Amino acid sequence: MTLLQSWVESANNASTDFPLNNLPYGVFSHGDATRRCGVAIGDMIVDVAACERAGMISLSGGPLLQGGTWNAVMAAGPEVWDALRAQLTALLQAGSDAEGPLAPQLVAQAEAQLHMPFDVTEYTDFYAAKAHAFNVGSMFRGPENALPPNWLSIPIGYNGRASSVVVSGTDVPRPWGQLKAPDEELPEFAPSRRFDLELEFGAIVGTPSSGMVSVNQADDMIFGYVLLNDWSARDIQAWEYQPLGPFQSKATATTISPWIVTRAALEPFRVDTPERERPLLPYLRAARPLLYDIELEYGLAPEGKAETILARSNVANLYYSAAQQLAHHTSSGCVMRTGDLLGSGTISGTEKDSRGSLLEVSWGGKEPVTLETGETRSFLEDGDTLTLRGHAAGDGFRVGFGECAGKVLPAVDLPDWAKD
Amino acid sequence: MTLLQSWVESANNASTDFPLNNLPYGVFSHGDATRRCGVAIGDMIVDVAACERAGMISLSGGPLLQGGTWNAVMAAGPEVWDALRAQLTALLQAGSDAEGPLAPQLVAQAEAQLHMPFDVTEYTDFYAAKAHAFNVGSMFRGPENALPPNWLSIPIGYNGRASSVVVSGTDVPRPWGQLKAPDEELPEFAPSRRFDLELEFGAIVGTPSSGMVSVNQADDMIFGYVLLNDWSARDIQAWEYQPLGPFQSKATATTISPWIVTRAALEPFRVDTPERERPLLPYLRAARPLLYDIELEYGLAPEGKAETILARSNVANLYYSAAQQLAHHTSSGCVMRTGDLLGSGTISGTEKDSRGSLLEVSWGGKEPVTLETGETRSFLEDGDTLTLRGHAAGDGFRVGFGECAGKVLPAVDLPDWAKD
Repeated sequence: MTLLQSWVESANNASTDFPLNNLPYGVFSHGDATRRCGVAIGDMIVDVAACERAGMISLSGGPLLQGGTWNAVMAAGPEVWDALRAQLTALLQAGSDAEGPLAPQLVAQAEAQLHMPFDVTEYTDFYAAKAHAFNVGSMFRGPENALPPNWLSIPIGYNGRASSVVVSGTDVPRPWGQLKAPDEELPEFAPSRRFDLELEFGAIVGTPSSGMVSVNQADDMIFGYVLLNDWSARDIQAWEYQPLGPFQSKATATTISPWIVTRAALEPFRVDTPERERPLLPYLRAARPLLYDIELEYGLAPEGKAETILARSNVANLYYSAAQQLAHHTSSGCVMRTGDLLGSGTISGTEKDSRGSLLEVSWGGKEPVTLETGETRSFLEDGDTLTLRGHAAGDGFRVGFGECAGKVLPAVDLPDWAKD
Repeated sequence: MTLLQSWVESANNASTDFPLNNLPYGVFSHGDATRRCGVAIGDMIVDVAACERAGMISLSGGPLLQGGTWNAVMAAGPEVWDALRAQLTALLQAGSDAEGPLAPQLVAQAEAQLHMPFDVTEYTDFYAAKAHAFNVGSMFRGPENALPPNWLSIPIGYNGRASSVVVSGTDVPRPWGQLKAPDEELPEFAPSRRFDLELEFGAIVGTPSSGMVSVNQADDMIFGYVLLNDWSARDIQAWEYQPLGPFQSKATATTISPWIVTRAALEPFRVDTPERERPLLPYLRAARPLLYDIELEYGLAPEGKAETILARSNVANLYYSAAQQLAHHTSSGCVMRTGDLLGSGTISGTEKDSRGSLLEVSWGGKEPVTLETGETRSFLEDGDTLTLRGHAAGDGFRVGFGECAGKVLPAVDLPDWAKD
């Protein structure tokens, strides 16, 4: 597939995340506090809320772009998704006679503030990269018992906290929590000393469901994807997670990239899920390529200093796709709704330089990583900015996600009532 | 405290759940599909949406009763909660001159359909009764290791699925899921054979928060309480729950009683949390009585047959109160929102006849219970109706919750794509 030419010049640059082939959906404000639905094109944003009001965009069941979130479009279903993409492509392609009326609706990304692109209904986090499960399991149980017995049969997941999801650029204060040192009898209440990131890929449910759905149906329900950093306090998690799973260790923040890259934009980059090491039950079997060849990386920049790329990975490293996770999610009859967000789990590859968390990079803190600044890191320090990036590479163009960034702030002061 | 007299005669009966002392909030329809906010009084419902339209109820920031849910009132805060309760008490008390205009707004409960009283934002389930944690732990790890090491320090909880929450009276199909027998190498996909109930108490967050809150602040944030049955597929759970906790085993349904009993109505029934066996960290310490003396029971009625009461318990059996759970929930900075629902965890007492789940009653299926019909049960069978009841007992009156009931339907047919 080749680059589609747009009259927005910056969209024809081979290094932009946002060529005409992409057309991702975000929410921005500019000049005032009003949240507006927008579409990224090159280094600009099309104010599609204004376009809809002006009649340049017209959607069945509309208006759908006036709410300051994309949920109304997401709920409207695949025909509306296709129609919107077709209208946007026609408006923005090179030679379109819409250039004249549309040009005034363009806002420079550099001058806009980006907001949450959709209201998260519920958030589920999975554990779907085998290398990550193996690495974490090896640290806790040794390599021979690393993978839990169910791992090759079930897309393991747990319900996360929707209220934790924030858009890229939101600062993340270091969490307080119960920590217990192995040699202490009782826990203390203290700021996390093992605060970490997780490199993930997030799938957004558009079409709701109220019964069991197949993997293909699940795939069709997905509206689009974002990058996702599932900030994790390893020390809080270690003490709290038995027997019911992670809770406050994952509730401080979950950062997503600001642009929803649609499933349609990623179609050319589909790849197969990996060979199965154990036969999957029929309800989980893939009948089409369900993963994407999306290159990922993340970097750490200490306060005021240059960034070091800590690892590179790929969405294709996942053992279970979002469609399989979503099908499993419905297997008990669980109702899924527009705006549900599914995190893939940490996407580590098998190589050391493809590990998707500091827990793995520093092997539980035993092998601190040296940054380009000369500093070392076992876990995150105050002032560190973590940035995730990802894109699918076409022929002379890329379909990218923009940055998924967040800066770690010092823990807030402890309120008096929480002091001894 | 004694019974407050109402001009609604049935509210003065010592056996009603809904005297003037209670005034719980629900949503009903009657005659058409319109969902209306209502207040239970005796065997009637006051259509408070109509009262607000007629000017008989007036709330700051209103109208707040026209949305077919109680979320707007919940979000409005304690002053509005107090004002509404005061207005309702004045309207409904014996001798009120509101009887004439208000009487036409009363609907018989027997003729109304009850709906979800509020939109659940997020749902969290805890594990806060020591006897339940001990019983379950004993079955899986033996009595000497029954309580997890963290249990006496942390109100253990996990995020549940808000979309699973349904109102009393909703049928519950037996879930499908991955089951693995101990002597099999691979799981099968089959209807759960160990489908169970959990007797719980649910707290509803009214006032939102965005940082750490104290136990007292948390207590003040709670709008009211419901009974809650956290339906649980024990066999699905056993195979799926390591290492990230329960997921599809808890996602089929969570039934709540239809009336929100306000915190104000329960004030006279406060009791202290139990003595601590290990000192709590300061942020979890109770400075006021945080539990309630609320008698609980649940019964099982096979299809078309009489009910057997399986156990009786009390909310006071909890080791951690909802306020402590909520304070812990915010400890990482987790944002809480209006409509968040917190399940207490299964409320078992120490006696055999106070066990809050069939898993415990039948001791993992090893000691099936005999019903009054002569049948036995280890776990739930198709056609079984489970009913939870609860009330606080005053002097000649009770503040009750109404019934929290659900009937188990056979598993749905397996779709062709899920067959081998």
